[in-house]
Amino acid sequence: MADELTITRQSIRSILNPGRMLSDGIPYGDYGEALDHVETLEEWFDFWAQKGDVYEALGDAALAAGNRVSGGEWLWHASLSSHYAQFMWFHDPAKREQGQRRKVELYNRAAPHLLPPAERVEVAFGDTAIPGFLRVPPGDPPAGGWPCAVLLGGLESTKEESLRFEELCLRRGLATFAFDGPGQGELFFDVKLQPDFERYTSAVLDELEARDELDATRFGVLGRSLGGFYALRSAAHDDRLRACVAWGFFYDMSDYESMPPVTQRGFAYVTGLDGADAVAYLRETLRLDDAARRLRTRSLLLNGANDPIFPPRQMELVRGALADAPAEIVVEPEGDHCCHNMGQIVRPRMADWLANAL
Amino acid sequence: MADELTITRQSIRSILNPGRMLSDGIPYGDYGEALDHVETLEEWFDFWAQKGDVYEALGDAALAAGNRVSGGEWLWHASLSSHYAQFMWFHDPAKREQGQRRKVELYNRAAPHLLPPAERVEVAFGDTAIPGFLRVPPGDPPAGGWPCAVLLGGLESTKEESLRFEELCLRRGLATFAFDGPGQGELFFDVKLQPDFERYTSAVLDELEARDELDATRFGVLGRSLGGFYALRSAAHDDRLRACVAWGFFYDMSDYESMPPVTQRGFAYVTGLDGADAVAYLRETLRLDDAARRLRTRSLLLNGANDPIFPPRQMELVRGALADAPAEIVVEPEGDHCCHNMGQIVRPRMADWLANAL
Repeated sequence: MADELTITRQSIRSILNPGRMLSDGIPYGDYGEALDHVETLEEWFDFWAQKGDVYEALGDAALAAGNRVSGGEWLWHASLSSHYAQFMWFHDPAKREQGQRRKVELYNRAAPHLLPPAERVEVAFGDTAIPGFLRVPPGDPPAGGWPCAVLLGGLESTKEESLRFEELCLRRGLATFAFDGPGQGELFFDVKLQPDFERYTSAVLDELEARDELDATRFGVLGRSLGGFYALRSAAHDDRLRACVAWGFFYDMSDYESMPPVTQRGFAYVTGLDGADAVAYLRETLRLDDAARRLRTRSLLLNGANDPIFPPRQMELVRGALADAPAEIVVEPEGDHCCHNMGQIVRPRMADWLANAL
Repeated sequence: MADELTITRQSIRSILNPGRMLSDGIPYGDYGEALDHVETLEEWFDFWAQKGDVYEALGDAALAAGNRVSGGEWLWHASLSSHYAQFMWFHDPAKREQGQRRKVELYNRAAPHLLPPAERVEVAFGDTAIPGFLRVPPGDPPAGGWPCAVLLGGLESTKEESLRFEELCLRRGLATFAFDGPGQGELFFDVKLQPDFERYTSAVLDELEARDELDATRFGVLGRSLGGFYALRSAAHDDRLRACVAWGFFYDMSDYESMPPVTQRGFAYVTGLDGADAVAYLRETLRLDDAARRLRTRSLLLNGANDPIFPPRQMELVRGALADAPAEIVVEPEGDHCCHNMGQIVRPRMADWLANAL
């Protein structure tokens, strides 16, 4: 672990991703403070964990005073700060788990106070339960119920990180359901990364089909990064999904060695395997060839040309494999990973596309 | 003008206020790009004006495709970018006017598509009309109508800059009315800074009282920076205002000489007078002593201890003058001007306070 803990200030800057963090809801002041003062990875965790404590205290005080809107938002800020404390913390599982659990607990407390509220739903699946949050737009649903976007996180992004994107959907008349699948967030402790993530998505759709407030004929899926890969697999395997958006994703693991070291470490971590076994498993498991052949779902696929994790070559592989699918493929020339650096442009565009497709 | 146009990169950093700009809605990507690439004041204007063009094109394309939510938001981004092009542009009135007009035109086009929409209202006043925007929360109003927060901009902040704050109010069940008064935004071209801003607020209240969707017994006022000064004057002179929030404001102009040069220039500019005449007028006009004696309105007064424009001494003057008023005075130890660096903490707090007071 020593090598990880001596990560330098320069490396801290590489994980201090302002486009992602700010688009997902980290306040600029906190980001700037981290930029100025955090020198090591150890300090990184403690800095954000302490921010979580600050927002939790603000949130609790607001709720005690009857100020529910602020209470919900500050508890969500607390959750998001706790999330970023641990998001690159792969070298010390006990501490990572502590950060995960804290994030989850804080989000659970924020959920009923969000506008609109997030309802926690646990979908039974084998010996475990898939945890997720359902949000529906304010007001009465249209005849037939709300269309619904199923949102998938990625390698270290989880259901608690999509609130800002949920808002984009909700404002466009889409309900949202964000959940943790195998290897993600809460479910990681029970189920590591699996080749068949789509079975979990289908179990979620079984649950959502039964909800009166939703229109079971208008489900879509949207996933970011590794979640984009899962979204495409899910759409290929379950035709209840009428539309699919994948952004910042990849075709296979053939560029594993050129990914940033912390990302390699993260991918290995979520398999629950060690070293060479993990890499072999990832290469065998994370492939889109089969799903690409099956895909008949209308899809929007978006990557950035400057993505340092999944290079443009990956999108060429996607393009070749999906030549016959109804897929619109966009590579933003100025975009970084997930085009986080231009979130104000690509995020509304994806939400529009999904709302129109449903 | 030469001295202004050779403003250095270092000076650009001093006006590149991330707390303010990002809290008001500038995307981080644009801010970061300006930080990295804008070298002179001339480039500053052109950089943001060009961003305005980019967002306008996005907004128009979205509207043409029927995507109203994105259309409204991107046109608002266009307006905000145009606003920041000219906000410190006091040395070249023709170009400043061009930036102002552009901001206004873009916001007018965004307004009907915002969620909830912003309705442009022009309040007749003498030979001119006070331009403002009314927004009401979605859904049916409560019995008696919505309580309403009247929002005042400052020296160079205008009615188009308060959208994010309006959202905080709207989510708490408050309608909002933001307008340009003397010396501000659109009205500057007709009316320069006046000693009696409160007459304009009262004219606005006359108009709002007549609106069925509003509750005329539940009006409050909130102003930032110079607008905080106006808010307190307005509350002291019109008892229809049941609550007042002033933030980042001042007691008088006794610290004029220690203000940043561009702020001094801005204050002089909005008087429409030259040099020494402007300064004498400001010193005579911008005083709270009379209003402080009259104030009986419940008030929240918030400044930052690190405000480089209005130093803590100004809040001591306020504290002394308002010893008998029902005013809660808060000086945030870590706060800068308007506590913009901690917007995620003070802004919801002010919105809560106002919602509870009304």
